[in-house]
Amino acid sequence: MHIVSVIMGSDSDKAIYSEVSSVLMKFDISFEARIISAHRTPDILAEYVRMAVNSGVRIFIAIAGMAAALPGAIASYTTHPVIGVPVASSSPVLGFDSLLSMLQMPPGVPVATVTINGGRNAALLAAEILAISDPSIEIKLIAYKKEMANGVVQKDRQLSKE
Amino acid sequence: MHIVSVIMGSDSDKAIYSEVSSVLMKFDISFEARIISAHRTPDILAEYVRMAVNSGVRIFIAIAGMAAALPGAIASYTTHPVIGVPVASSSPVLGFDSLLSMLQMPPGVPVATVTINGGRNAALLAAEILAISDPSIEIKLIAYKKEMANGVVQKDRQLSKE
Amino acid sequence: MHIVSVIMGSDSDKAIYSEVSSVLMKFDISFEARIISAHRTPDILAEYVRMAVNSGVRIFIAIAGMAAALPGAIASYTTHPVIGVPVASSSPVLGFDSLLSMLQMPPGVPVATVTINGGRNAALLAAEILAISDPSIEIKLIAYKKEMANGVVQKDRQLSKE
Amino acid sequence: MHIVSVIMGSDSDKAIYSEVSSVLMKFDISFEARIISAHRTPDILAEYVRMAVNSGVRIFIAIAGMAAALPGAIASYTTHPVIGVPVASSSPVLGFDSLLSMLQMPPGVPVATVTINGGRNAALLAAEILAISDPSIEIKLIAYKKEMANGVVQKDRQLSKE
Amino acid sequence: MHIVSVIMGSDSDKAIYSEVSSVLMKFDISFEARIISAHRTPDILAEYVRMAVNSGVRIFIAIAGMAAALPGAIASYTTHPVIGVPVASSSPVLGFDSLLSMLQMPPGVPVATVTINGGRNAALLAAEILAISDPSIEIKLIAYKKEMANGVVQKDRQLSKE
Amino acid sequence: MHIVSVIMGSDSDKAIYSEVSSVLMKFDISFEARIISAHRTPDILAEYVRMAVNSGVRIFIAIAGMAAALPGAIASYTTHPVIGVPVASSSPVLGFDSLLSMLQMPPGVPVATVTINGGRNAALLAAEILAISDPSIEIKLIAYKKEMANGVVQKDRQLSKE
Amino acid sequence: MHIVSVIMGSDSDKAIYSEVSSVLMKFDISFEARIISAHRTPDILAEYVRMAVNSGVRIFIAIAGMAAALPGAIASYTTHPVIGVPVASSSPVLGFDSLLSMLQMPPGVPVATVTINGGRNAALLAAEILAISDPSIEIKLIAYKKEMANGVVQKDRQLSKE
Amino acid sequence: MHIVSVIMGSDSDKAIYSEVSSVLMKFDISFEARIISAHRTPDILAEYVRMAVNSGVRIFIAIAGMAAALPGAIASYTTHPVIGVPVASSSPVLGFDSLLSMLQMPPGVPVATVTINGGRNAALLAAEILAISDPSIEIKLIAYKKEMANGVVQKDRQLSKE
Repeated sequence: MHIVSVIMGSDSDKAIYSEVSSVLMKFDISFEARIISAHRTPDILAEYVRMAVNSGVRIFIAIAGMAAALPGAIASYTTHPVIGVPVASSSPVLGFDSLLSMLQMPPGVPVATVTINGGRNAALLAAEILAISDPSIEIKLIAYKKEMANGVVQKDRQLSKE
Repeated sequence: MHIVSVIMGSDSDKAIYSEVSSVLMKFDISFEARIISAHRTPDILAEYVRMAVNSGVRIFIAIAGMAAALPGAIASYTTHPVIGVPVASSSPVLGFDSLLSMLQMPPGVPVATVTINGGRNAALLAAEILAISDPSIEIKLIAYKKEMANGVVQKDRQLSKE
Repeated sequence: MHIVSVIMGSDSDKAIYSEVSSVLMKFDISFEARIISAHRTPDILAEYVRMAVNSGVRIFIAIAGMAAALPGAIASYTTHPVIGVPVASSSPVLGFDSLLSMLQMPPGVPVATVTINGGRNAALLAAEILAISDPSIEIKLIAYKKEMANGVVQKDRQLSKE
Repeated sequence: MHIVSVIMGSDSDKAIYSEVSSVLMKFDISFEARIISAHRTPDILAEYVRMAVNSGVRIFIAIAGMAAALPGAIASYTTHPVIGVPVASSSPVLGFDSLLSMLQMPPGVPVATVTINGGRNAALLAAEILAISDPSIEIKLIAYKKEMANGVVQKDRQLSKE
Repeated sequence: MHIVSVIMGSDSDKAIYSEVSSVLMKFDISFEARIISAHRTPDILAEYVRMAVNSGVRIFIAIAGMAAALPGAIASYTTHPVIGVPVASSSPVLGFDSLLSMLQMPPGVPVATVTINGGRNAALLAAEILAISDPSIEIKLIAYKKEMANGVVQKDRQLSKE
Repeated sequence: MHIVSVIMGSDSDKAIYSEVSSVLMKFDISFEARIISAHRTPDILAEYVRMAVNSGVRIFIAIAGMAAALPGAIASYTTHPVIGVPVASSSPVLGFDSLLSMLQMPPGVPVATVTINGGRNAALLAAEILAISDPSIEIKLIAYKKEMANGVVQKDRQLSKE
Repeated sequence: MHIVSVIMGSDSDKAIYSEVSSVLMKFDISFEARIISAHRTPDILAEYVRMAVNSGVRIFIAIAGMAAALPGAIASYTTHPVIGVPVASSSPVLGFDSLLSMLQMPPGVPVATVTINGGRNAALLAAEILAISDPSIEIKLIAYKKEMANGVVQKDRQLSKE
Repeated sequence: MHIVSVIMGSDSDKAIYSEVSSVLMKFDISFEARIISAHRTPDILAEYVRMAVNSGVRIFIAIAGMAAALPGAIASYTTHPVIGVPVASSSPVLGFDSLLSMLQMPPGVPVATVTINGGRNAALLAAEILAISDPSIEIKLIAYKKEMANGVVQKDRQLSKE
């Protein structure tokens, strides 16, 4: 049983996916990964989302470029949180297309949109959500935040030596 | 049996819809009109599109604002032409959201996007498509084009009198 | 003890706030509301976020326009989910400023951004997140989704009668 | 006699053209290809469009960058459907110029605009239009849609093995 | 015989036209005004431009909104200077459509684009061009520039009295 | 005595300048070229423009990127036509900065803006302006237009052989 | 002797100016106000800036819309700080024109740009700059910051009573 | 004791920083450099800004990309001038995100924003501000301005020899 489902709209989104998966693994969050296209395999998507919800998935992370209907389509089938990662690399309009397609969801059907190409932030947001009812993840998040702060401090010290 | 289906994502799109319907009526093209939301009623949409295709619909016109997933969702269920009308009025980013959400469909699943708020052009495009196999519509289109040109000529003459 | 905290950057964001509060009340989610400015009262913000976390707040909803640093500032002080609502009305560049200021958070510090002016979606996203560990909210969300779908169906039927 | 005419505004659009032609060939749709510039050879364009219509062309596909007047100019001479492909590569403003120049046609003269650089979608839209009166193309479109879905399924399976 | 031709794409551009005409009259520049649509009356446009050139027109001013093909179409038929005025009022994307459609002409076919809604500047540019070979216009332009500077000086003085 | 003055804001604009100069030379139009910065050498600019006008310059071509004040500054000192070429290459916002800085001149002080990076079109526009009173240039412009059309026709023929 | 000079490009910028002047008066900073146009009265501007510097002006605040060359032109004549306020109200492209025209100054000639329509912030920035060498202004700034924070706190309290 | 503090949000901003530092050194302005993240090390930032102010820092220069909250966060803790440099290189939306995040500060908390990637202009602005009370810097600024003008004149002369 996986608690998070990560869905790419196309295998060209794998670079962003690998950011998501490495963070989820770091936080020991079980997840399943799928390539399902909202526009090319709509029935598989509808069926999968319902099946996933039944088998225990609690959060969906959707990675998509261009018209980027994927997170919105997932959100239309479930009441679980859907996190959207707009992808810029496959787009000649710099990610403005995927960004606006994800963010501008109509009232009643939210998508939690994160930074363009922001696979890492999507996974962290999932961890933050799960941490509400799982203190072990919260402990790791606090450690991660400290580690990240330390990283900045290290670079700051290095600068002062240059 | 209707040959064209006009679908609005919400009843706030009725002003654009009435442009579509008045042109279709002018060309004696039989159509059915529906309010179906890609994000709020996804199953009704999937079922309707397949049913409509079986009952003879040959062209879909989809009117939607904001994330505007409607025409793309329709196109995911059918191989019939889908015409998209991006709506600007309901959007705080001027229609750039609906425009890019419709236009930037991935390879393999086209949407024929027309002018922002362009209900009239969507209906005319449907007429042009049907005219390929229906000479009676072509005759009306040629008359319409002439009439439109005459309208410009009238205004031009009026100007010269001012 | 409140589980959600709703923070406005200014009292000009009250219209969006009232959308948030009415949805939270509908879902019987206890919340507290504050007006705290990231730029005008930064110390109050830092102190409040930590205090709120200690007193049981699990989700923050931040409503802000223009440079819209509020949700990011909150996220810098906590590992709990922060939902950002970009506000367009107070901005001469249509909300592109608040949208990009919220969305483009650096790796490591996510903000879950929703629709511009999307108070309703922010509250629903909070409900979805809480529903992961509170089945009573999930039941209400499923009912809400059904009600919303019914609303579309009603309008669709009314159209067919016109 | 060709049923589709593919017109490039310049030979710098050949990469997009080759996407169009390969799809049309796959669907056994007879077509002719031309390089005609709306701005450099306007009389040839006017004459060609009328001649093409008389000799049996039923759909025009126009590929153009920058001011991208080509599809609109074609549409001004015919009542047959005109499909526009905005080209981004030749533009220092990312294709926003060609996109808006094509899409924002005035009421009465529609252009069916597809994805930026979307040669493949333009050809598929032409096939969808022709399929309305040619069941052999519809059969191929349905097969193509299935094949495309299978492609996604294959990549999804491969992912699960990684 | 008129030396300047002012062409509107539609009678909705009359407000901008009246700015053009009042400046041309102020400079005693003879002009003719027409409403001709590049997309609705393309043959009338082609014929008119050639006829106008033969009858002595030396500069064209084209006022158009949305796809704004008018100045480019005129420029395709003549080697005389074409001045384009992009119109914002009729556009839901703020004039970015007409601006880019006019400005981004391909190499070889220039359009001299002025301020959005800038009827006054279009007429002044025409006057500046004609002044190269007509010293009487140059004298008026120099007077106009002085008058305009005096207008600023008056307002500056008034401010110091407030 | 030169009739055209070509001014670059910086020597990074030389690539665009060489397009301008090669077209002017092709049309046997005498010109002088300068590097003068509106922001770094404002007094030299003011002095030069007045001196140039006195010594016979009739048209200014200004090439500039970023804030691109150059053509507007020239226009503030003279009533002769000023042609502006917005440069995109030196700008991280794609030329939108130079484009809007040139185009959006206030009423009373026009700048004739051409295609982004459009050195060739700037020179052609200058030739078109001079041709009004110099029939020898008009003859060359007509030949150039024919040659350009022939270029398209050649490429069209080549395509039909492929 | 005034230490700050506030220059508007046109009297249509008076609403923004009154925000500037009321803040400067609140801080007892002596200033002079002028209406001088970079494009309509360039010589007056050049002369004024030098004269102002000689008579003791230490900071310039420039308010301008559209091409907004004013702050850059001032900066070209002086080494004193120039603060630019981009004005959106007079612009059909939402202030993107004035914003980019001011901000994108070339290396070597900075303009300190503030919020669109941000007269109040321009005056506060001037006060902050003067406070470096005038402790009486710094005391007022600290009080102002506290007062502003108190304003937020008051509104926050009022909210808790509603 | 340093009078200027230069803060980067991340060590990826070092290229811009080195422009800042080389100009400050040229003007013999003492400065300290830090890497502190508004979002990753908010407490360090708050503490540092107050400490820096106490130890004599009078101007802050903040370099940041994406959501770019750094200069605004600094400005929330001090009444000293804060200069913001928006960074484009780390952003898939061309720097529009950092630009708007910095510039669109709310009334009461100004940030002096300079050219995108404009490290050099940020340092010059700091020098201009300090020159108000330090004539030795003003002398250097005047020399710098002259040198820069001479650079343009040299390039202009070189051009005339080509």
